[in-house]
Amino acid sequence: MNTPVRIALDAMGGDFGPNVVIPGAVLALARRPQTEYLLFGDSSQIEPLLARHSELAAHSRIIHTTSAVRMDEKPSQALRHGRRTSSMWLALDSVKKGEADFAVSAGNTGALMAMAKFTLRTMAQIERPALAAFWPTLRGESIVLDVGASIGADAQHLVDLAIMGAAMARIVFDIDSPSVALLNVGVEEIKGIEEVKAAHRMLREAALPNLDYQGFVEGDDLGKGTADVVVTEGFTGNIALKTAEGTAKQIASYLRAAMARDVRSKIGYLLARGAFEALKKKLDPRSQNGAVFLGLDGIVIKSHGGADAVGFAGAVEIGYEMIRNEFLDRIRHSLTLSQERRMTSAAPAQLTENEPGAGRTLSGLTK
Amino acid sequence: MNTPVRIALDAMGGDFGPNVVIPGAVLALARRPQTEYLLFGDSSQIEPLLARHSELAAHSRIIHTTSAVRMDEKPSQALRHGRRTSSMWLALDSVKKGEADFAVSAGNTGALMAMAKFTLRTMAQIERPALAAFWPTLRGESIVLDVGASIGADAQHLVDLAIMGAAMARIVFDIDSPSVALLNVGVEEIKGIEEVKAAHRMLREAALPNLDYQGFVEGDDLGKGTADVVVTEGFTGNIALKTAEGTAKQIASYLRAAMARDVRSKIGYLLARGAFEALKKKLDPRSQNGAVFLGLDGIVIKSHGGADAVGFAGAVEIGYEMIRNEFLDRIRHSLTLSQERRMTSAAPAQLTENEPGAGRTLSGLTK
Repeated sequence: MNTPVRIALDAMGGDFGPNVVIPGAVLALARRPQTEYLLFGDSSQIEPLLARHSELAAHSRIIHTTSAVRMDEKPSQALRHGRRTSSMWLALDSVKKGEADFAVSAGNTGALMAMAKFTLRTMAQIERPALAAFWPTLRGESIVLDVGASIGADAQHLVDLAIMGAAMARIVFDIDSPSVALLNVGVEEIKGIEEVKAAHRMLREAALPNLDYQGFVEGDDLGKGTADVVVTEGFTGNIALKTAEGTAKQIASYLRAAMARDVRSKIGYLLARGAFEALKKKLDPRSQNGAVFLGLDGIVIKSHGGADAVGFAGAVEIGYEMIRNEFLDRIRHSLTLSQERRMTSAAPAQLTENEPGAGRTLSGLTK
Repeated sequence: MNTPVRIALDAMGGDFGPNVVIPGAVLALARRPQTEYLLFGDSSQIEPLLARHSELAAHSRIIHTTSAVRMDEKPSQALRHGRRTSSMWLALDSVKKGEADFAVSAGNTGALMAMAKFTLRTMAQIERPALAAFWPTLRGESIVLDVGASIGADAQHLVDLAIMGAAMARIVFDIDSPSVALLNVGVEEIKGIEEVKAAHRMLREAALPNLDYQGFVEGDDLGKGTADVVVTEGFTGNIALKTAEGTAKQIASYLRAAMARDVRSKIGYLLARGAFEALKKKLDPRSQNGAVFLGLDGIVIKSHGGADAVGFAGAVEIGYEMIRNEFLDRIRHSLTLSQERRMTSAAPAQLTENEPGAGRTLSGLTK
């Protein structure tokens, strides 16, 4: 535990660039004194900010870059003009070279994913990386993946997502055996797409260690926190995530309108202001900051583009926890283990997937 | 406009059966005097309720049934024991036989879909029916379909959903040319699944009359009301709908907890009670009551199982509007028209779908 954790920061990423990244790093360092920072970005912007924070200055090094990926750039554009030169690319590349233990960027998600795949590559057992988000629930927080790193998933990819999500939950939530569920729909007879059904069977039969597979959940279980980890493919996951964010904004807007409708309501609002502030904080996407790219040969944390310094420091903390808990090794171990199991027990399950009655058996197992 | 509209009601459906259906019919009749009701259900339960409402009694007829579909029954079970005998089946069958113009049930959604498909069959051009829901938005209401009638959709089915949804919006929202969008994800380069991209191109090239195709929207556009009609396949649609419902409940729960946290908040709550009641009403799923099965050779409205009499009357009103506006004929006309266009202009679009650069062109068109 004595070696410091070395953290690569894309200082130009996000809506506020170094104005959030540097104060964020100050907070992160205060929380974890055994950290060092590689700050990738325009030194003329970073230096004046760093001058105010001698402690961080002593624990960091600026790597001057002249190009930055814009928030609205397409991944292919970003790769074209930002490869080998942009703050984002170089931060990721320092992880690849072993100069940093993990990277954090608040920049363009699509570009970050494309560059991370390019520099770090995926793990041996994984074809495509996934993006795991923290989902606020009535019971606390869940991890939901994939929320949009790739579109479509076969049963094996869904199982891999379950394994990676569980490994992440073990570390981040400190639970020995996180509950894991597959996102599905509720109409019994047509329950789910074939891939989801097949993944359901594979997860049940594999009986993976430290993964408490619970079967299917529906969209409204996300907010309830029915499972620690909810697995779905990226198209549906992205739409579910954005639908929830949209609904939260919509209700906040209704609430503002309701509280402004007459004098009584306005006075009531003033009296209950503390309560409203607490609620606002709860609904603030920054309080659940830091989505994680999983399946890469390296740790990359995506901070919310609009996050403030506290939010950014939270994203750094996630990466720190993952490093200190040897996340990559543990995920590799879980994946290898599950691959071995697949080769023995789970294979026959796949072969019989289309036999008559299989669908019925599965439906019976769901609730 | 002088012929009365004849309405078949599954009096046993929903959480409250005739206790909601009969008062609901009373309200519906008061609103639309030119209606007549066929009440399918247990006459020993219906008669005492009807005795209190002479006006409805004069405009209705009870068809006594001895079996009813339970709310928790699987569609196959319901079909097995409720076929030809249950209130739900017989209500649908009366539409099939031309004795009623449309049917309303607050019963089991899966069973209603299965029975409706069985009795009414799908329209000639449509392979599978869809379930269209009203989605409350910041601008009012949108129609979202499919929210779970069937899983998976090819491009043609998505186009059919767009046509049916637009026809419904024209009637229910009284808009000449409703805006229609396809639900998709936001990461540019991997934007969408092949079916969604192909449907996007078909809708653009077909340039259907009275349908203002707007391209892609994302999950958070649902609550904003960016388009009058949002089209997606049933798996994603069902998960989006339930995720939004779950998020609304979650926030309501946070809000209740916040308002109870101290004396000031409690007093504030009491003062702003009217505002909270208005908000509660806005979030109440009953206020957007009445999902519609589309693509069937007949009109079937699904009322929310927990709806009250006002909600149930709202579901009846939707069916009434659809009949008075000759919904089925208009949908058939739209579908035939689009089929003709497909045979001419849209066919080459499908053939060139996989040519190099097609994906890029599509991404460029999206926002």
